[in-house]
Amino acid sequence: MQNSLFDLVAQPTLLLNETKAKRNIKIMADKARAQHVHFRPHFKTHQSAEIGKWFSAAGVKAITVSSVGMGQYFASHGWKDITIAFPFNWREMDAMNVLADHNHVELLVESKETALFLEEHLRLLTEVWIKVDVGAHRTGIDWQNNAALKELVNIILNCKKLILRGFLTHDGRTYHTHSVEEIRMIYDEGVTRIKAAAKNIEPSPHYSLEVSVGDTPGCWLSEDFGGVNEVRPGNFVFFDAWQLSLGVCKAEEVAVAVACPVVAKHADRNEVVIYGGGVHLSKEFILQDGKPIYGLVAFPQANGWGNPQEDCWVASLSQEHGVVKMSPDAFQSVRVGDCLCILPVHSCLTADCLGRYLTLEGRWLDMMEKP
Amino acid sequence: MQNSLFDLVAQPTLLLNETKAKRNIKIMADKARAQHVHFRPHFKTHQSAEIGKWFSAAGVKAITVSSVGMGQYFASHGWKDITIAFPFNWREMDAMNVLADHNHVELLVESKETALFLEEHLRLLTEVWIKVDVGAHRTGIDWQNNAALKELVNIILNCKKLILRGFLTHDGRTYHTHSVEEIRMIYDEGVTRIKAAAKNIEPSPHYSLEVSVGDTPGCWLSEDFGGVNEVRPGNFVFFDAWQLSLGVCKAEEVAVAVACPVVAKHADRNEVVIYGGGVHLSKEFILQDGKPIYGLVAFPQANGWGNPQEDCWVASLSQEHGVVKMSPDAFQSVRVGDCLCILPVHSCLTADCLGRYLTLEGRWLDMMEKP
Repeated sequence: MQNSLFDLVAQPTLLLNETKAKRNIKIMADKARAQHVHFRPHFKTHQSAEIGKWFSAAGVKAITVSSVGMGQYFASHGWKDITIAFPFNWREMDAMNVLADHNHVELLVESKETALFLEEHLRLLTEVWIKVDVGAHRTGIDWQNNAALKELVNIILNCKKLILRGFLTHDGRTYHTHSVEEIRMIYDEGVTRIKAAAKNIEPSPHYSLEVSVGDTPGCWLSEDFGGVNEVRPGNFVFFDAWQLSLGVCKAEEVAVAVACPVVAKHADRNEVVIYGGGVHLSKEFILQDGKPIYGLVAFPQANGWGNPQEDCWVASLSQEHGVVKMSPDAFQSVRVGDCLCILPVHSCLTADCLGRYLTLEGRWLDMMEKP
Repeated sequence: MQNSLFDLVAQPTLLLNETKAKRNIKIMADKARAQHVHFRPHFKTHQSAEIGKWFSAAGVKAITVSSVGMGQYFASHGWKDITIAFPFNWREMDAMNVLADHNHVELLVESKETALFLEEHLRLLTEVWIKVDVGAHRTGIDWQNNAALKELVNIILNCKKLILRGFLTHDGRTYHTHSVEEIRMIYDEGVTRIKAAAKNIEPSPHYSLEVSVGDTPGCWLSEDFGGVNEVRPGNFVFFDAWQLSLGVCKAEEVAVAVACPVVAKHADRNEVVIYGGGVHLSKEFILQDGKPIYGLVAFPQANGWGNPQEDCWVASLSQEHGVVKMSPDAFQSVRVGDCLCILPVHSCLTADCLGRYLTLEGRWLDMMEKP
């Protein structure tokens, strides 16, 4: 069952199927191109200069990041057009000014206070987006709050250092759905809402606000982006057990798995203990039939890993231990010293935990380092 | 509200109160000494050579780690007596042999297969413990399974390279309790069980098996260690919101908090958005009144942080965003650009996420790096 790739696995190791990731990138890039929508993928999922090059090869020129530090990292690897899709953090003003000296950086604003802070402290003219909440209620101004949106638009228009690009949202509601149809419906609803909010406010007859949207489930499944100007999905490059459970992707489209050494077996309960815990997989879970699932379980194959095994799942995680529930047949076929391949629940968090990738060809890819 | 320490906080930053941590160390070290119990603290919580020195100053000479890599790190910082408290991972045999060349390393065994693997591949004579399950059912041989324990004891006694020290357990049941009395009761029960299992097996009249136990709730709260030979708690050096919720520690004993910049406010729902997400705090949560709580909320003070605010908690985390529910009064007193201090739910995982500490005196402490 085990082959030479797995000889490289001594600790929990994030395996990356380059072919699948490149295919996922191409599908999304082609779809955006076909609809003449600006594609600005979110790089927080992979955080890797090398994987960034795969996007570049697919024609991508502009990216989304979630922090100033991530912007600095990708700027140092040649990316010049960067949106920091996070409510602007005042405490990184100096770093932002340095980053903007040599790069085109777009920012998010959702309060008068932040707009005025930027106006006072920015060194260069900067494009900004107003963060709009179309229903997920994480952050942003409610799409129905026309007065607040209008006030902030007017404040920004009166700022000499700020150029208003338009409205931006991340409709996280698509992550809490029960069918592909529901995801498509929510995507359409979110787009309708943010477009309505933008249309309600016409800064001038010659100045229309752009619209930027972001989530992977909606962007991957929607057949029509609905006339938005920009899409910013990120997770689709890898997918994961969560996207699989939502019906967004197929098992064979998941491009990452964590190879974990098997360290113990418990025949009385068909459980296997792996070296692979919360510090490797993250503690993100999905609920299935009321049970928390911290990862799906596949067997190593010569070319990577197989499809997830039925009735097998990571049932609990402590710091370094993972407890895997297995079907009796699957349990029988595993030995201490083997590896299991765990499809992570949330690939963005798992990649952040593990800090590097091992491609199926045996090549290590680095990620950005933490501060 | 904000002072010069917080001027150093641009991103989510793990603050460490050195005085509190040293006090926690001293209390546990003194207690073990008073009872003549060997104190082998678990260093997976802090993963820091510098913090290791604080244990050394308290008289600690032997440590517990959860991986071969962590053993290598602490060995390179002068620790010579190391137990790797994890079912031995066959795939790190070579690294283990190198580590054992210059250090005293003790290992965990819980199967015949692993004992025989070690016998075949170890270069040097090595002390091992049998991992026993006293009820938590994560891993180890059930304490009641006398036949399996006896078989493994005999196999190990017949191995030329293995020296059997005794039985070792981590009674994780104390983390799922509802009162201090329950924790003490479970601690005592676990000790009674593992001692009974050890007593049932007498390798020879001149050879009695030692007993090693480990969890912070039980070791911190029990007044009497119950005649065990060794204790291996780890979390007590920092404590966290989980230990606080269990009643193990007091709020003023929690030695770490994550300073997080406030980036947005939502007055309609008394919510604040912080720069501080699952990649900083980890996604560990506790349930209180059916609500998940990802962290408690304290205000910065000149000397660190205050007590957790009533009716304030981290209600959700995405990759970089945290959503904090606040009482109306607390909400009013916070401005965008401020910091909040988040008491993490599980300090071991949060420390692993953040990778370094900032002491209240403004000193950065490094941690071991990931592979």
